[in-house]
Amino acid sequence: MSSSIASIQNVKRVANFNAGPGALPLAVLERIREELLDWRGSGMSVMEMSHRSPEFEGINADAEARLRRLLAIPEEYAVIFLQGGGSMQFTMAPMNLCLPGKPVDVLHTGTWTAKAIGELKKGVLHNIAASTESEKFARLPRRDEMKFSPDASYVHICTNNTIEGTQWTELPKTAAPLVADMSSDIASKPVDVQRFGLIFAGAQKNLGPSGAAVVIVRKDLAERADKNLPTLLQYRTHIKEKSLYHTPPTFAIYVIGLVLEWIEKEGGVAGIEKRNDAKAKALYDTIESSGGFYSCPVAKSDRSKMNVVFRVASGDETVEKQFGTEAAMHGLVGTPGHRSVGGMRVSLYNAVEPAAVESLVSFMREFHRTHG
Amino acid sequence: MSSSIASIQNVKRVANFNAGPGALPLAVLERIREELLDWRGSGMSVMEMSHRSPEFEGINADAEARLRRLLAIPEEYAVIFLQGGGSMQFTMAPMNLCLPGKPVDVLHTGTWTAKAIGELKKGVLHNIAASTESEKFARLPRRDEMKFSPDASYVHICTNNTIEGTQWTELPKTAAPLVADMSSDIASKPVDVQRFGLIFAGAQKNLGPSGAAVVIVRKDLAERADKNLPTLLQYRTHIKEKSLYHTPPTFAIYVIGLVLEWIEKEGGVAGIEKRNDAKAKALYDTIESSGGFYSCPVAKSDRSKMNVVFRVASGDETVEKQFGTEAAMHGLVGTPGHRSVGGMRVSLYNAVEPAAVESLVSFMREFHRTHG
Repeated sequence: MSSSIASIQNVKRVANFNAGPGALPLAVLERIREELLDWRGSGMSVMEMSHRSPEFEGINADAEARLRRLLAIPEEYAVIFLQGGGSMQFTMAPMNLCLPGKPVDVLHTGTWTAKAIGELKKGVLHNIAASTESEKFARLPRRDEMKFSPDASYVHICTNNTIEGTQWTELPKTAAPLVADMSSDIASKPVDVQRFGLIFAGAQKNLGPSGAAVVIVRKDLAERADKNLPTLLQYRTHIKEKSLYHTPPTFAIYVIGLVLEWIEKEGGVAGIEKRNDAKAKALYDTIESSGGFYSCPVAKSDRSKMNVVFRVASGDETVEKQFGTEAAMHGLVGTPGHRSVGGMRVSLYNAVEPAAVESLVSFMREFHRTHG
Repeated sequence: MSSSIASIQNVKRVANFNAGPGALPLAVLERIREELLDWRGSGMSVMEMSHRSPEFEGINADAEARLRRLLAIPEEYAVIFLQGGGSMQFTMAPMNLCLPGKPVDVLHTGTWTAKAIGELKKGVLHNIAASTESEKFARLPRRDEMKFSPDASYVHICTNNTIEGTQWTELPKTAAPLVADMSSDIASKPVDVQRFGLIFAGAQKNLGPSGAAVVIVRKDLAERADKNLPTLLQYRTHIKEKSLYHTPPTFAIYVIGLVLEWIEKEGGVAGIEKRNDAKAKALYDTIESSGGFYSCPVAKSDRSKMNVVFRVASGDETVEKQFGTEAAMHGLVGTPGHRSVGGMRVSLYNAVEPAAVESLVSFMREFHRTHG
């Protein structure tokens, strides 16, 4: 049985600023396409492989090894691929890591920490250690505003707030382990994993497609969990079986491996950070130099390099809608802000090319000229 | 930005008898490849689309509509796509459908019902209504062996047992709703959905890639659940948001839609059943006519059309190993049985071509001639 492509395909590609799922590297997509019917001579697609085959076990181990290398993850941490996205971790983290009578401290910085709090409210002892809700989350809490519990089970933090456009650069020092929702900035820059007890991230922003979450967890903390919890909701199940306790999202893990390989070729997370810094600078500079036509509501020190939120014409919704529409007509997709806050939001995840940002910046100057 | 393929690729394809993840239709894989960099002029891969975009909402709605049409699912049932595979349903079904003090009745027929029982043992009142464990699950329980609770919350059944090679053809009549693990025979033949309270299936056998599970649930039963359960573990969350409460496994849902479209082209589930019947008949006939060289341990009336288990040379492990190795050399992949039971297992899911079965049958005759 065989198949062939004999046609020349001309493929349209837009500049993709979606907040997630978002852009993937073109080189990765081309590799997937090349291997889609026959992964490296196996005679089948990765989607058709048994998860217990040596081929898939290799793909799974390779993805884990690449992430360990890229983020310099120490041996005492497990790396597992789970289903349920980042959101399932709002349930799994407290289920597994809470100690009796010891609260979860939360640094409340936006929509995603609100979701985590929502799950904690269903019967988990917790404490809001700091919140900037009264300022519409336009900045992150200062150290002197944080009131941690003396005996917290852990401290929940969201390292990058996709909707509000804030990002932690300096992490608070805490006595209890930090549990970080790193869904939207994992692998976008170097990180000191040893500062964390647990890191989790839905893959669909910086790592690959949706349908897989990466969890990096200190092995001793995973042992806190009651063994009577549902099997799939215990980290230890997946640690012990190297993410293969049950059928994992095989194709998503394969794509994650390819994206990690691409990051390595781009100079690792240090190289990617440099690239991301330049992209963010180009965009914030354009906003700042627009004489107020574009404005970013976020405190300068807390601005995200992953999700740049801004208003157009002092938040005139008609002009903002026009911005999104005209941008899309220019092949610049995904600029409207989250439906809950309005305005614009441009996501600059790893796979977004500097050339895409250059196109956007040119468009913004032109839009300012014609609508200013 | 654009990209092109100018090469002619010659692609090797094996006959894939894997138990899951398993074979996908070649036409579906070719379609995925064609659309991989640019889904229908959108300028992006399905993997890069926002799950809140009209494009993806269309893909999601289309997959649901096709499944509804194919299985004639009545309006009072919801159809949702979840993460966590079939295994997560061993937890979610009792969490959502158990009524206080009313047990779950289980028809225990093998490895997968054992997994369901394992989760029930963590504090859910339950009753083994029948079991054929003492006969190594080589047949299904007879009606006169079943002892149902008068007040059961529901009755758990696995319609096809992948490891033991049994499949229910006539469903037991029960007073309580049937909750069916249909992971390995969903959409392989027509089914009367109204006989069930809930049907669940990991996609990776008959419907698509791993990483998504289909749940078909009577809407009134989903309302039994305590609203204080974790949000993602309540069916009602996903029913209300049409599987888009959080980021779903977008690519897996897209592939499921394509597979369902392919089933429609093959004549729907009635057409697929005819094709599947012929495949299974060819294989069982070869076993039966081998004069005992091949033997199937399963009672004739309960033999699965999806997973054909058999022994070679009275279960001589050396010969069986040789069978698997030689078959693979002939491009017939995935014939060794599950590691827990040994022997051979050939999976004949929807996407397995009749031609693949013909090749296998020829190989079996030749293997018998040379090793008999």
